[in-house]
Amino acid sequence: MIRLTLSDAHSLAQSILLHAGFSAAHATAVSATIVAGERDGCASHGLYRVLGCVSTLKAGKVVADAQPEVIDQAPSIVRVDAAGGFSQLAFQAGLPMLQNKARENGIAALAINRCVHFSALWVEIEQLAEAGFVALAFTPSHAWVAPAGGHQPVFGTNPVAFGWPRPGKHPYVFDFATSAIARGDIELHRRAGKTIPEGWGVDEQGQPSTDPNVVLDRGAMLTFGGHKGSALATMVELIAGPLIGDLTSAESLAHADGSKSSPYHGELLIALDPRRFLGAATDQHLARAETLFESIEGQGARLPSQRRFEARARSLEEGVQIPEALYHDLKALLA
Amino acid sequence: MIRLTLSDAHSLAQSILLHAGFSAAHATAVSATIVAGERDGCASHGLYRVLGCVSTLKAGKVVADAQPEVIDQAPSIVRVDAAGGFSQLAFQAGLPMLQNKARENGIAALAINRCVHFSALWVEIEQLAEAGFVALAFTPSHAWVAPAGGHQPVFGTNPVAFGWPRPGKHPYVFDFATSAIARGDIELHRRAGKTIPEGWGVDEQGQPSTDPNVVLDRGAMLTFGGHKGSALATMVELIAGPLIGDLTSAESLAHADGSKSSPYHGELLIALDPRRFLGAATDQHLARAETLFESIEGQGARLPSQRRFEARARSLEEGVQIPEALYHDLKALLA
Repeated sequence: MIRLTLSDAHSLAQSILLHAGFSAAHATAVSATIVAGERDGCASHGLYRVLGCVSTLKAGKVVADAQPEVIDQAPSIVRVDAAGGFSQLAFQAGLPMLQNKARENGIAALAINRCVHFSALWVEIEQLAEAGFVALAFTPSHAWVAPAGGHQPVFGTNPVAFGWPRPGKHPYVFDFATSAIARGDIELHRRAGKTIPEGWGVDEQGQPSTDPNVVLDRGAMLTFGGHKGSALATMVELIAGPLIGDLTSAESLAHADGSKSSPYHGELLIALDPRRFLGAATDQHLARAETLFESIEGQGARLPSQRRFEARARSLEEGVQIPEALYHDLKALLA
Repeated sequence: MIRLTLSDAHSLAQSILLHAGFSAAHATAVSATIVAGERDGCASHGLYRVLGCVSTLKAGKVVADAQPEVIDQAPSIVRVDAAGGFSQLAFQAGLPMLQNKARENGIAALAINRCVHFSALWVEIEQLAEAGFVALAFTPSHAWVAPAGGHQPVFGTNPVAFGWPRPGKHPYVFDFATSAIARGDIELHRRAGKTIPEGWGVDEQGQPSTDPNVVLDRGAMLTFGGHKGSALATMVELIAGPLIGDLTSAESLAHADGSKSSPYHGELLIALDPRRFLGAATDQHLARAETLFESIEGQGARLPSQRRFEARARSLEEGVQIPEALYHDLKALLA
């Protein structure tokens, strides 16, 4: 393993993205979310993603110098046209207006359109929660997941993320795929020649399958939680697709046209300002939420993201460690 | 079984509620949602609930003539103080302002406070979707459900409901508990002396239990979908509790103080206006949503609520049927 300080990790990612041809603004914004993933122990959203950014650019599937355009769509809606660039810069561009609208009106939405998306949603949700907002985020991906009772892929892994501000503490944040498992986990089982647990996927007749080849190549992945997870995945398609005038997971997969590039579509964020709901009583009611968290942690259950926050504390002290092979693959991109 | 026309069913419910002492406005609003439940084949939210309304009033746990107060909280927030009455009239009172704010600003929230709640959320969601809005609803209940990894009840059955408008068709609507199963289903197993499937509940040490007595009396129910369902249940507590200045499921259960009355707390609804997101392209993007629905139904999978809509079509033709014993119990309340 190679150890890097967070600052070195950021410089490495940024220099590779610049060298590949991304604009300075994109290289900086993308590096920040990639280093956040690595820092928080989410290797699947960490430095390894730099390789995907470069290959997506080489495949002509992302605009290296896209200028996000911020549109004041309605009193409580901001729209950002990412113009074919990665989502991070578009989110940054829309964030101030989203916050202003939520502060002014109590609730507001940010629709990001035409972005290439690979970022974990918690990175964005955390920024909103740290700024005092309750926040939700949704995005489709590529159609890999069948609806409950079906056998053909319709949904993406369609994550749902939520954040709640906790004064003086890390916010309460969750961010989960509505698929039973990440596609990458099934890929890992395939490479290792292992079967997968029941519940992850079906064959082309809709029968449960434990063969990763069948699930990935001919059948489909499943949602978590049966028909309830399937309903949530449908909701994500609708509100982060047609509602914002952007692609569904099926349309995004068709757009990729066989390339391994990141999904291209939209994202919906919703921000709610507790101070507009609660006025002078805000602090008192946020304290009642702490009682709820205590009743969960007090019985030995964990809050989501705690593992991430623990990894973060370690990384801030010790830096991050990445496999030597990955380090060399990254360095090779600077040649 | 006794057969009733929908009109007779409504008159029966209404006359009982009036006789029990509810104001005409409450009797009419509550009867409408109860008959909607019976009509759609949801007996658990049907005429049987009239008994619970009357017993809740006799227990002093609902205000029979509460006047909901509508408060223009912020440009995109309506608040309705239900003043201790059932939720239905409060929802009705707040609905026009919610719709106006969503139409004007693109997204708006309705917070209902201090209501006694037993209504299915789809009744409300459907009204918003029929009026052209995308809608979400959340409410806590009584603390019966343990967090993932825990063994003590913290959450209610905490439903999440969603609606999407489909021009010329019934809207796409789902409404599900974030608990693995309704509490009533576990009660039915207890009465029948049957064990319950694994995954519905745990004992007081957090071990899986198939004994309904253990789960109901000493252990706790579980959420659907493991840690993901548990995260959603937490979100419902937060956004339909502290965010709107109202009780959590634990506080609501404490308020009931051993009585079997309906939960007393708040509800959060969010309405989004597709026309403010999409402008002139609205119809084109709603048509793309229909392609998504076709890709689900075309492979033999069902959309949520289809069973309800089928039951509704039958009930509109043939009326509803209720058990004779229930009919006599209801009639007895008019004596």
